[in-house]
Parts: sequence; C-alpha cells; structure tokens
Amino acid sequence: MTSETIKSDRPLILVTNDDGLEAKGLRELIEVVRSFGRVVVVAPADAQSGMSHAITVKTPLRVKKMREETDMVFYKCNGTPVDCVKLAFHQLLERKPDLLVSGINHGSNSSTSVFYSGTLGATLEGCINEIPSIGFSLLSLDSDADFTAAKSIAGRIIKKVMENGLPRSVCLNVNIPKGTEEELKGIKICRQNRGSWREEFDKRVDPLGRHYFWLTGYYHNNEPEAGDTDEWALRHNFVSVVPLQTDLTAYTMMDEIRQWDL
Amino acid sequence: MTSETIKSDRPLILVTNDDGLEAKGLRELIEVVRSFGRVVVVAPADAQSGMSHAITVKTPLRVKKMREETDMVFYKCNGTPVDCVKLAFHQLLERKPDLLVSGINHGSNSSTSVFYSGTLGATLEGCINEIPSIGFSLLSLDSDADFTAAKSIAGRIIKKVMENGLPRSVCLNVNIPKGTEEELKGIKICRQNRGSWREEFDKRVDPLGRHYFWLTGYYHNNEPEAGDTDEWALRHNFVSVVPLQTDLTAYTMMDEIRQWDL
Repeated sequence: MTSETIKSDRPLILVTNDDGLEAKGLRELIEVVRSFGRVVVVAPADAQSGMSHAITVKTPLRVKKMREETDMVFYKCNGTPVDCVKLAFHQLLERKPDLLVSGINHGSNSSTSVFYSGTLGATLEGCINEIPSIGFSLLSLDSDADFTAAKSIAGRIIKKVMENGLPRSVCLNVNIPKGTEEELKGIKICRQNRGSWREEFDKRVDPLGRHYFWLTGYYHNNEPEAGDTDEWALRHNFVSVVPLQTDLTAYTMMDEIRQWDL
Repeated sequence: MTSETIKSDRPLILVTNDDGLEAKGLRELIEVVRSFGRVVVVAPADAQSGMSHAITVKTPLRVKKMREETDMVFYKCNGTPVDCVKLAFHQLLERKPDLLVSGINHGSNSSTSVFYSGTLGATLEGCINEIPSIGFSLLSLDSDADFTAAKSIAGRIIKKVMENGLPRSVCLNVNIPKGTEEELKGIKICRQNRGSWREEFDKRVDPLGRHYFWLTGYYHNNEPEAGDTDEWALRHNFVSVVPLQTDLTAYTMMDEIRQWDL
C-alpha cells in the first residue's frame, strides 16, 4: 500500500470560519481536527462577521493556496464563508468531504445569531450539501482568547459525529462558555432560544456634517425562564449543542393557511 | 378627527427588497400595498442579491430620505436588506409596523434559495422581530418583467395576512411563476423543497494571468417526484406559498444526540 493510498483512506475534513485565515480560533480548530483526518482549510482572507449565508455574485472570486504540509493544505479566498465552502466543494476538493467544521468563532452564535453569523452560514451550507457539519463558537470576542476548554469540547463532539454521523439536513451549532474545562458544568442538547437583537444604532456626524450609523445593540431574550434553550445553558455555564435543520417549513401552519381560501 | 389622527390609524407597512430602490419589482409592490395603509419604503441603494441575512458591522451605514408624499415615504440605505429593516425598526419608524413586505424579487427564491436571498433575509428579519412578514418573488430575471399577475396575487395574500395575522415566528415565502393570471393554475401551500445548487464556477484568467472565478451553477432537485413542495408547484404553474419559521431547531434529533453521552 503506497503512502498516497493510506492518505486517501483517511477522512477528509473541510475547515472554514468567518474570522479569517489569521484568526486564533481557526488555528485551534485545525489542531483539533488534524488527528481525525486529512485537513483542507479554505478560509476568508479577512474577517467576515455578520456575513450570514451571503454569496458573492457581483465580483470575481479569487482563491490562493497559501501552504501545504503532510495531510493539510491551506487556501485563502477573497469571498464570504459560504463562498469558501462552495469553492471547496466544487473546485478545490477531489471529493465530498466527510466532515465540515466552522470556527472556532470568536464570540457567541447562540439563538437567532445563527441567521447573522458567517460561521453558521458556512455550517448550514455544508448541511444543505449533505455533509455532516458543525459550527463552533467561544463566548469571547478576545482575539487572543484561551481556547483550551473549547478545543477539548470540540474534540469530543467531532469524535461522536465521526462515529454516529448526522442525519441529512441536520447540523450542529455548538457554543462554549468562557473558562476552564473544570468550570464548565457539562454539555446540554438544547433548542434555539427565542429572542432578537434590540438595535441601538450609534448615530454620528461625519466631518462633512452628514449623519451615519454604526450598528450596536443588545440581545433581548423573549423567554428567559425557559430551561431547555441554548441561552439558558450558556448563562448557567453549560456548553450548548443545538441541532439545526435546513428545512424552514413551518409545517404546523400549513393547514391553517389552507383555510384562508387563497 | 384631524387628518393626522386618521393617518395614524391606518396600518403601517414597511416595504423593502434586495434589488434596490430603482427596481421595477419594488415599485409594483408599493402600488399593491398603498391601498392597505401608510407605506414606508427603506430599500438598498444598489442591488443586494445573494446578501442573505448579512448585516453591516465593519462600515458605517447611511440612510437618506428620497421622497415623501401622502401616506408614503422613501428612504435609501447603503447597506443590506437586513440593515434596511433594522434601521427602519430602530431609527426610522415611530412604531412597529403592522406588516413587512419584501420584493417583488426579480427571480425565484424557492427551496434552499431562502438561505441566499436578501429578499428572504429581510422577510425573516421582520419575523424575528415578530412582525407579520411576506417575501414575494417572480420567476423572471428580466428587469422589465410583467408584474401584472404577481401584483394581483400579492394583493390577495396581503389581504388575507392583514385579516388573519401570522403566528409569532412564522412568515411567508411566496413565489409566482411567469405568465398571465389566467395561465396560473392557483395558489398552493407547500413545504420547502430539498435540493442544492451545483456550482459550476466559471474559471477565467485576468489580464495579469491570474485565475478568478464567477459563481454560476444550476439547481439540483433532490426530490423531483414529491408533489407537496414549492419546486413542484412552480414547475406546474402554481403560485407557491411556504410558511417559514425562524426556529431552526431539529427537535427530532435532540433525543438521539442525548444518547451520544457527550
């Protein structure tokens, strides 16, 4: 058996993020997945926070191989996280990957943040393409955050997903509180909390006297008492794991709307 | 009763889109909603197709009042469709609107396109904020498309939503085939089709000899035989109405993942 055959027998893992190729969280996640298989990293050149599931349709995409070593190759792309995933699937990888991991994001992606997050955009894109996909986020915006506990948790979850797989059209949204592994109370399987961002735009005046806005704001929890949500878990120092689906159909509403006699 | 009081008693309707303030589809949708109440239009300055649920966090947002007439005001914004909705909710509107409509998009937003579409991004953002919200799309990319039938359909659906409301966390994704109203076979309440885009990137070489990519591709339907999906309805010349929910939790998977003993 040649070394090529041995190499090609190992699982193929696609890694991406939305904080960009230089982010510490990406490096830490790569360290975790290296032991599970061959790793292909395709990450945005710059931070792409808030890019959600956006795709680039008006400008050309560029992708550059940055580095290659045993069982690992790094590409950087000028597009969004979802562009990275699409380029990987359709241009860079020789076959469908066995796993997609996105992150580890610097900052929370719990609750409705799944809609805004580029980290989760990439994860959901993997899921749409029927690849077992996991998005990881650490509840710290610090660019030099301590990922020790997050890496350990990520390793445990990746191992289980590699063993058990994930059903088609389901991916995982994993959020990890700050702190040491001893401080974490455990891992909770949760539902997505209901809430929204209350935007308090910061209204300013530029040197030419024109108004402009910066988006700021805070998260408003619509159900702070509920004990089965990701927000509750994180507030109580549990890791939250929310299985997400890409079918958004509100099945319970279909019959009611049929009564409207449209 | 003063005219101001009369005015403020009318429903308040927020209109946005992702094709930009100059798009014909937006003008046509405004014509439809004018008869239902006061209209505030907050739309992107330029086309924002593929912007999904993206928010602008790295650059300042600017918004400009373009025109005001009886019971109607137009704003243009340099951001994404979701930025437009957030600015409307938190800066421009004096109260929560009674309805949000987004579109009429030039081109389909059925199936998994809800993830990429700025039109649906804005619709889902309304829904997250508990506003009855509807996204409309016409299956024609023509910038001068005929919206006659689409307007009639939109009017019927808006009327029903104004009468019946929508449950919290549910919004509507309406796609309308091309053609006259007589050619349409009716309105079908559907589920989101399962499928994905098969990206065939167009790989080119720039004048400096460097490669770049344009995203192209075609939709692959994973369940072409299913008769209850939006794709099926549209292919058979029905208008498709898919109720969408903003809770992405895959509830059926929660127990299974609990067995993993993480």
